Amino acid sequence: MLDICLLGTGGMMPLPYRHLTSMMARYNGSSILIDCGEGTQIAIAKKGWSVNPIDVLCITHFHADHISGLPGLLLSMGNAERTEPLLIIGPKGLSRVVASLRIIAPELPFPVDCFELSEREQVIRMDGYRIKAFRVNHNVICYGYTIEIDRNGKFDVEAAKALGLEVRYWNLLQHGQSVEVDGKVYTPDMVLGKERRGLKVTYVTDSRPTEQIAENAKEADLFICEGMYGDPEQYHKAKDKKHMTFYEAANLAKIANVKRLWLTHYSPSLNYPKEYESVAKSVFPAAKVCKDGYSIELKFDDGDEDEEKP
Amino acid sequence: MLDICLLGTGGMMPLPYRHLTSMMARYNGSSILIDCGEGTQIAIAKKGWSVNPIDVLCITHFHADHISGLPGLLLSMGNAERTEPLLIIGPKGLSRVVASLRIIAPELPFPVDCFELSEREQVIRMDGYRIKAFRVNHNVICYGYTIEIDRNGKFDVEAAKALGLEVRYWNLLQHGQSVEVDGKVYTPDMVLGKERRGLKVTYVTDSRPTEQIAENAKEADLFICEGMYGDPEQYHKAKDKKHMTFYEAANLAKIANVKRLWLTHYSPSLNYPKEYESVAKSVFPAAKVCKDGYSIELKFDDGDEDEEKP
Repeated sequence: MLDICLLGTGGMMPLPYRHLTSMMARYNGSSILIDCGEGTQIAIAKKGWSVNPIDVLCITHFHADHISGLPGLLLSMGNAERTEPLLIIGPKGLSRVVASLRIIAPELPFPVDCFELSEREQVIRMDGYRIKAFRVNHNVICYGYTIEIDRNGKFDVEAAKALGLEVRYWNLLQHGQSVEVDGKVYTPDMVLGKERRGLKVTYVTDSRPTEQIAENAKEADLFICEGMYGDPEQYHKAKDKKHMTFYEAANLAKIANVKRLWLTHYSPSLNYPKEYESVAKSVFPAAKVCKDGYSIELKFDDGDEDEEKP
Repeated sequence: MLDICLLGTGGMMPLPYRHLTSMMARYNGSSILIDCGEGTQIAIAKKGWSVNPIDVLCITHFHADHISGLPGLLLSMGNAERTEPLLIIGPKGLSRVVASLRIIAPELPFPVDCFELSEREQVIRMDGYRIKAFRVNHNVICYGYTIEIDRNGKFDVEAAKALGLEVRYWNLLQHGQSVEVDGKVYTPDMVLGKERRGLKVTYVTDSRPTEQIAENAKEADLFICEGMYGDPEQYHKAKDKKHMTFYEAANLAKIANVKRLWLTHYSPSLNYPKEYESVAKSVFPAAKVCKDGYSIELKFDDGDEDEEKP
């Protein structure tokens, strides 16, 4: 239902075998990209996914490793003759940064719209899902993002029949719309059961751990969180540079009671992040030290297992 | 003596297994980079070379596939605590483009100096070599670059002895400097034989073939030239988009009487450029359809063979 791919897992600079951290979500024909560093479009192509269906790009902050791939992404979309608008969401100053980077991508066959976040928490309603941006704690203004898909209650056939409503109206009600027939208004709650658990993915990088992150990631199906350093002894460095250790990220996952944690945004000096997976698992057993391209198919809770794809 | 690496061979957009076209030269402890698209710093790292010794970056033109990697390159140099200045050479408007892209790389621990080309042909003298920029024919202002290393004549020991000059002065004369001893001036020509053949590398992308290119590449040890299309039937497309076919590039190499031709800057639609190598070789037998990372060690002409490294 909701495909998530962690396109890259590096922080600071791209490495030959580690792309910069970014995430792509595919849902219902549209795609959401979070962050776009140098080489992100290559990571998308490696995964076999396409840049064309991306209709929203969320930028966490304006450090180059999170946005330097923007001109290339825009031009690749343009080369594919895209005409649909692209919405870019990001911190205050976004329009100026995007305009400045577009000095090498001035002409595009599609409109680029910038939405600048102004609050500490802000919800943007998209077609069929919500994006919630929330401030995190880095050395520049930085946001985390949650993607949430709500799920209506189960359609109650007996209730619909009892209302005497023609079958051709059922689909509208099932999708949350009211209908008026012969002067009478039928609302979704008349035929839908209690709202069911939807899907939730929370993405945080770069930041120190904060209460607000734990609050926003609460009970997420997937929590993707930075872990710049694996070794817990690098705690002071993490604190100075406004990043986290694996241990700290795992602790956030535990407090937030998420279903699973994926670690990312490793320091270039961290050659074998997997060596520290046990540190994260000791606090939060469902922690995973991810590699580039790791993905999952999240399914609504009908007994189907989510499918992870290394 | 002069190491050349063709870091990437792609045009337009980076592909999972084809970096964007750029070239790096290493000579006498310093390095020259020509063009820096998205991912060029990754290609340098893959080769096992370093961004730190780069003291000159030449930009052919301001299309994103030739300059989008600049902010990342600058930041990686900064992360390595570089303090030496970087000289960037490029077309008119360079300072504005560099400043605009630096919105995401504003603070660097080293100075960045821009040198804007204003003539159709221009020579920049560096320490121990020359860079010659020359206008080519693309749909925006674009330059080709030649790197030339001169070589003094052979030192004539007998002539130096006959002058009665102490041995400690010989080295200065050998390296082209005059010396004054006891009021008498000794000039290099007194002890050096006829100037010997140096080394010459010419790099051209993106352009239609022109007389000026053939003139500037004349008798180069290595001519790196764009070949956007392999199939000679794509001539009209090449002409429209101001690029070349392999056939046209090979023809330039033939006219310029170069030692060898390396083709690069393939269209993303050209999946197997090697299939068209025979087309280039039919015109110019020393043509090679290169892959990313192809390199050569060019040696002064003392009977040593140049060493190619696929």
